[in-house]
Amino acid sequence: MSLGEFDLIERYFSRGTARRDVLLGVGDDAALLEVPAGRALVAATDTLVEGRHFLHGAPPESVGHQALAVNLSDLAAMGAEPAWALLSLSLPESDEAWLGPFARGLYALAEDNGVALVGGDTVRGPRVVTVTALGLVEPALALRRSGARPGDLLYVSGWPGEAAAGLEALRRTGRPEARDALARRYLFAQPRVALGRALRGLASAAMDVSDGLLGDLRKLCAASGAGARLDLPRLPVSGELARRHCPADCERFVLCGGDDYELLFAVPASDAARVSAAAPAGLPLHCIGEVEAEPGVRCVRDGRVVSIGQGGYDHFA
Amino acid sequence: MSLGEFDLIERYFSRGTARRDVLLGVGDDAALLEVPAGRALVAATDTLVEGRHFLHGAPPESVGHQALAVNLSDLAAMGAEPAWALLSLSLPESDEAWLGPFARGLYALAEDNGVALVGGDTVRGPRVVTVTALGLVEPALALRRSGARPGDLLYVSGWPGEAAAGLEALRRTGRPEARDALARRYLFAQPRVALGRALRGLASAAMDVSDGLLGDLRKLCAASGAGARLDLPRLPVSGELARRHCPADCERFVLCGGDDYELLFAVPASDAARVSAAAPAGLPLHCIGEVEAEPGVRCVRDGRVVSIGQGGYDHFA
Repeated sequence: MSLGEFDLIERYFSRGTARRDVLLGVGDDAALLEVPAGRALVAATDTLVEGRHFLHGAPPESVGHQALAVNLSDLAAMGAEPAWALLSLSLPESDEAWLGPFARGLYALAEDNGVALVGGDTVRGPRVVTVTALGLVEPALALRRSGARPGDLLYVSGWPGEAAAGLEALRRTGRPEARDALARRYLFAQPRVALGRALRGLASAAMDVSDGLLGDLRKLCAASGAGARLDLPRLPVSGELARRHCPADCERFVLCGGDDYELLFAVPASDAARVSAAAPAGLPLHCIGEVEAEPGVRCVRDGRVVSIGQGGYDHFA
Repeated sequence: MSLGEFDLIERYFSRGTARRDVLLGVGDDAALLEVPAGRALVAATDTLVEGRHFLHGAPPESVGHQALAVNLSDLAAMGAEPAWALLSLSLPESDEAWLGPFARGLYALAEDNGVALVGGDTVRGPRVVTVTALGLVEPALALRRSGARPGDLLYVSGWPGEAAAGLEALRRTGRPEARDALARRYLFAQPRVALGRALRGLASAAMDVSDGLLGDLRKLCAASGAGARLDLPRLPVSGELARRHCPADCERFVLCGGDDYELLFAVPASDAARVSAAAPAGLPLHCIGEVEAEPGVRCVRDGRVVSIGQGGYDHFA
């Protein structure tokens, strides 16, 4: 059965929501949303293109998950509480076998994070998914990239690099399936929303690691008008990554792999004792270096600066 | 010269804004925006795919215009004041000859409407443009599709059908240029923001005509749990349309053509005298029929119901 656009939205993307701040959701010209007093709106948008941001034949459930996750990760990096999302979906055909699991993946993550899908657009075209996520934060507590100061300690959450290794495994086997543990880390990476919330009033700067730790650290430093020393031996390498890759590859995955949605953040040294208390259950936080006055990022091992080539993922480079 | 993603955003999409409610714009993980007390947020997102929503070889300035206009039209249909926009741009290559005029078209319309571009994403892929527009409205005054009541008069603004005739002219000549008056109506259609604002507290229901007047009227009636009588002889046919097309084609363009961004709205008969005062300078408003209790839309000519086949534009039909 082929579905028209309006049936398609009605059937897959019109679930009700318990959020009472949704005055008007899917079905009118636009959504009508209530922003509480004392909160600023946080808005992010990201696009996934088939064959570039997800593999041809990728499990549609993971595409739905990723399309929202990459945006919730941006909200997390601001310390925001996610609230609403809009979906724009371009598909070559109205394919129910794809749409069902896609919607399931999207809604599962949305519901885990209290997000209501309040609007969107479905069009015929190449398989391209754009989500806009909207969240709320006390404006004075929003995490920015620009607040890191020399002497602040640098942290990263979780196990960056696992997702990149998972993607490589998927590409190598040619089977975009979700059985492999690292592959699942790529296909269903978790945005660090609770951590972002906990870092309000603690982190001097934060951003999510979406394009690779090293490149993203360079951006954080540039935004803060500072530099950094990155201690290579302190980079976190997960047991699963270490078991399957040599140390040099592990380091490359951790430094240059994206798609983990871990948070990179700076904390004044005087507040270092508060960091471990901010970690949500089961999410380790690793101190990996220090902010310095001198611009640029210096990767250091055994007291010597090591040159690292690739510095992140640039879609047009 | 080929530009990387970050340079590209920096170069084309990082203009400053005079809006003081933009606490943080392009350049961090997400935008941080201040919503004034007493206003609800209005959010819409729409996607344009090359070859489907704009022609291959279309003037990039018009693509930039359209990508924002289609969303501002959604905000207009809610009676909202546009405030901010996010742009997601998928392009096969970093093409400066295309990006320059695209950004010009987008910013020209944004600045005309006081909209700040506060974030977005640029990726490599098929040429697909998604804009999310955010606006503000007093929640009690927001225009909805669902408030039309039997006896309300139905109005449409401007000259619907001109854009569809312009698109047909562009397709026929194969030259997607903007010299022709009707073609310009398609390429640079104006969202009816000022009209939408003026209809707050006056219209009982409103929506924008993006998929064709007849199909959109059916949606408005369905949302309102009502029906309508559409008086075919009262349909507005512009002089330019009438000069170039036979009456039957004119009627088809007016009833079934989209992309004009005119507003379709209902007004209680007792308030009909206030309608002409609500019209912005130079924008005629035409009474075209009446809301009725019986579901469905009846097109009437010479006292008889006329059957009309095509009812709007459905991307997956």
